[in-house]
Amino acid sequence: MSIRALVWNENRHEQTNKLVASLYPQGIHGAIASAIGEDADIITETATLDEPEHGLTEERLAATDVLVWWGHTAHGEVSDEVVARVQRRVWEGMGLIVLHSGHFSKIFKALMGTPCALSWREAGEVERIWVINRNHPIAAGLPPYFEVREEEMYGEPFSVPEPMETVFISWFEGGEVFRSGLTYQRGAGRIFYFRPGHEAYPTFHDETVRLVIRNAVRWAYNSAPAWKAITAAPNVPADKAPVPLTVKGARLHEDGEEGFR
Amino acid sequence: MSIRALVWNENRHEQTNKLVASLYPQGIHGAIASAIGEDADIITETATLDEPEHGLTEERLAATDVLVWWGHTAHGEVSDEVVARVQRRVWEGMGLIVLHSGHFSKIFKALMGTPCALSWREAGEVERIWVINRNHPIAAGLPPYFEVREEEMYGEPFSVPEPMETVFISWFEGGEVFRSGLTYQRGAGRIFYFRPGHEAYPTFHDETVRLVIRNAVRWAYNSAPAWKAITAAPNVPADKAPVPLTVKGARLHEDGEEGFR
Amino acid sequence: MSIRALVWNENRHEQTNKLVASLYPQGIHGAIASAIGEDADIITETATLDEPEHGLTEERLAATDVLVWWGHTAHGEVSDEVVARVQRRVWEGMGLIVLHSGHFSKIFKALMGTPCALSWREAGEVERIWVINRNHPIAAGLPPYFEVREEEMYGEPFSVPEPMETVFISWFEGGEVFRSGLTYQRGAGRIFYFRPGHEAYPTFHDETVRLVIRNAVRWAYNSAPAWKAITAAPNVPADKAPVPLTVKGARLHEDGEEGFR
Amino acid sequence: MSIRALVWNENRHEQTNKLVASLYPQGIHGAIASAIGEDADIITETATLDEPEHGLTEERLAATDVLVWWGHTAHGEVSDEVVARVQRRVWEGMGLIVLHSGHFSKIFKALMGTPCALSWREAGEVERIWVINRNHPIAAGLPPYFEVREEEMYGEPFSVPEPMETVFISWFEGGEVFRSGLTYQRGAGRIFYFRPGHEAYPTFHDETVRLVIRNAVRWAYNSAPAWKAITAAPNVPADKAPVPLTVKGARLHEDGEEGFR
Repeated sequence: MSIRALVWNENRHEQTNKLVASLYPQGIHGAIASAIGEDADIITETATLDEPEHGLTEERLAATDVLVWWGHTAHGEVSDEVVARVQRRVWEGMGLIVLHSGHFSKIFKALMGTPCALSWREAGEVERIWVINRNHPIAAGLPPYFEVREEEMYGEPFSVPEPMETVFISWFEGGEVFRSGLTYQRGAGRIFYFRPGHEAYPTFHDETVRLVIRNAVRWAYNSAPAWKAITAAPNVPADKAPVPLTVKGARLHEDGEEGFR
Repeated sequence: MSIRALVWNENRHEQTNKLVASLYPQGIHGAIASAIGEDADIITETATLDEPEHGLTEERLAATDVLVWWGHTAHGEVSDEVVARVQRRVWEGMGLIVLHSGHFSKIFKALMGTPCALSWREAGEVERIWVINRNHPIAAGLPPYFEVREEEMYGEPFSVPEPMETVFISWFEGGEVFRSGLTYQRGAGRIFYFRPGHEAYPTFHDETVRLVIRNAVRWAYNSAPAWKAITAAPNVPADKAPVPLTVKGARLHEDGEEGFR
Repeated sequence: MSIRALVWNENRHEQTNKLVASLYPQGIHGAIASAIGEDADIITETATLDEPEHGLTEERLAATDVLVWWGHTAHGEVSDEVVARVQRRVWEGMGLIVLHSGHFSKIFKALMGTPCALSWREAGEVERIWVINRNHPIAAGLPPYFEVREEEMYGEPFSVPEPMETVFISWFEGGEVFRSGLTYQRGAGRIFYFRPGHEAYPTFHDETVRLVIRNAVRWAYNSAPAWKAITAAPNVPADKAPVPLTVKGARLHEDGEEGFR
Repeated sequence: MSIRALVWNENRHEQTNKLVASLYPQGIHGAIASAIGEDADIITETATLDEPEHGLTEERLAATDVLVWWGHTAHGEVSDEVVARVQRRVWEGMGLIVLHSGHFSKIFKALMGTPCALSWREAGEVERIWVINRNHPIAAGLPPYFEVREEEMYGEPFSVPEPMETVFISWFEGGEVFRSGLTYQRGAGRIFYFRPGHEAYPTFHDETVRLVIRNAVRWAYNSAPAWKAITAAPNVPADKAPVPLTVKGARLHEDGEEGFR
């Protein structure tokens, strides 16, 4: 049984910035998709901001097991309708991997409920990523730590909720630390935030970074059927209760009525 | 030093439904405020939906330590702007107590990032609330369990994130269970969801329910100064880093520039 | 690749009590092993208290991916040495499923660090088990709730740490609730506590209970190599640091020395 | 109402090592006690390993709200009986602050259920402690980060359970990171692990470190009455159930009988 991964990228820097274009001739999405596609049992496609509905139609999301998200300069251009659609699919069970500057994407902020802010510096410094939870599936095959030789710095406090698990913490040459691998669940969907991936560096060509993303797609995959009814608030009439009841008190609602929202 | 609590109520059933009006002649907000006000060191005010800006101006929120929220039939009438304002104050450190049908309020859903759905039944059945975390400040002075003789049923699954702490779990006469007291933190703000409080019953006159709400206000109070900068993403120039650096790699941004959002 | 499961049972009631012997002619371990063994890719063996080293030698544990534990009347007879050995294997990555009265086993208490106490009643009452986390792997294939028609009651407060995930909550006919499916991680090992399984009832012949145990074995399985060094506290000499250092301050220890324990 | 703090120290290096003796002429416990005692409403006493029962009698623990623990070279000399006694008091609600090398104390390992191991280096390097949870009571009055100019390094992975909250993360000059401020709850007791405090450096004279310890004592204080019954497993007879029952099934136990342990 294959996992169906979809890599989403705003794909803007690649059009306007020579450096990014030269680092990622197939686009950042292309580089990430090739990383995931190294596993033959993951089917990988891509989608970008400028496609109709940003390439994220109902049909396509319904056929996606894990969505990988990279965005930076155009978070504001992602339509609220598509964000709500993606959020609903996560609730139903679709996995979501949010990379680097995706921390400020609408979808990540909507799922976290917090600002998702941090401090930052673009100085090409060393990032040393320590594995905190060594036998976690996302850390499969990793050494005790790995380094990205040139990266943007992200510093704490990272205003996200306490995670389910802290998988990685980064040390930066300039003196900061950052929780660079965090897991969450929202509804039935598993979410992994992974810090590296600034567009001015060849991070997505790094073999270890690519392995982490591949591991994360496997981890976020949920084989259960989509939980379509997760937003429903069903009324359970008194005579249909697990222990059938006679109504005793006062009432505002009729049997089977929809509740207020 | 006093705690400044603000009780918000949509205050609609009280105007249109004789039963609710007779149960809560001072409004549901009035009953809740009187519960909290039993502690002399908590200053309690109220605000309602039909006031300008729903009674939740910037000034008023800035002067509020803990906000208590009751809504049911008019969640959709709360303006998105006010919701964003309240959310920001929670991030800065304001406590938030969400009661009963407030599970579907815009502010609770925005902070949780999930549907916050559940099943329900209005049959005046017994709710028995078990204290799971007995020495938690919110459970101060409580017996091992307490009962509300007539309440609406809320049943699991309650589609919220895993809580920081499960304080209460309810048993219902009709056979369901519900996590009826849950704590969260979002940004610097502490959040408590408390299940009881259907408008068709005199729940907010129950002494134990009133004690829980009072305890919750104390627990959610954070004496730290408001974290005003929690949404900021400051650039830290290389020469101002804790360990000053020389820029090594390529760059997209200039020093001190604002990042993308 | 097969999962190697080992079902451990104290196997005492089966020898001394006619009722238990008639319900579980192959022993409780036999019934549980047959439940797990319904999946062809799980290799299932059993071990019991009265075997040498309780059937839990170093070699056998090293060859076990997931250990399932049932005990009740003889917790005190399990040797501390074997408990420490099992605990270490859990830290290294072996999964552990603790069933019912195993809540008071030495191994569960050692891993939780808490009393693991609860209230109880043996009245053959209905237990209705609600699925809280519907798409969790342990809940695969389950309905919204399932019932065990006759079970012992366990009531809250269950003095365990806040879990990683609450998968199930039980409703009891006599009025109590219980968190009946809880996940934890200790070291690299995943732990699942599952409540049903009193020896006086045919619970381990119930198809839904058997499915849960099978699911739990899959969930607790960790394919990563055993984390053998998890108890080591290695010294990292200054000249071998990721960023090599010159020693600056005073010292108590020599390079490469073992620390104190 | 005063908080009663008790500072425990093994007090061995001070007797045998000139450096430690000169840094801490009143003992490490003396330095810590003076830090806590800066708040007039905290009553601070000390206890050491070589006192009868290590200075931790039943009576003394019963009169202690928060215990602070420093040990290093003599963890193995602390009697198992006293460890069990302290653990029980934590379960009842006593707060516990574990400092630095106390990570390997018997009491911390017993409460965590994990190895509590880490890597280390004694090179007098800079530790920069970042505040992750800025408005947490333990961080009251702190800047975004603070530095200890010379400290022992502790490196991840720190084999402890996922914490309730990550309050601090440390950056080390030699390239490691460490979760240096973690909160837990075990039974009714709150636990805080704080990393700094190697005996070869004057860390406990640092004003910021002293403030953190003082804050932590306040945070760990629980005003609820001791939960004396937390280890009890009471039988609830069928006719005393919240919903009285007639016994239906088979039974192993008589009414009111003690369960097995």
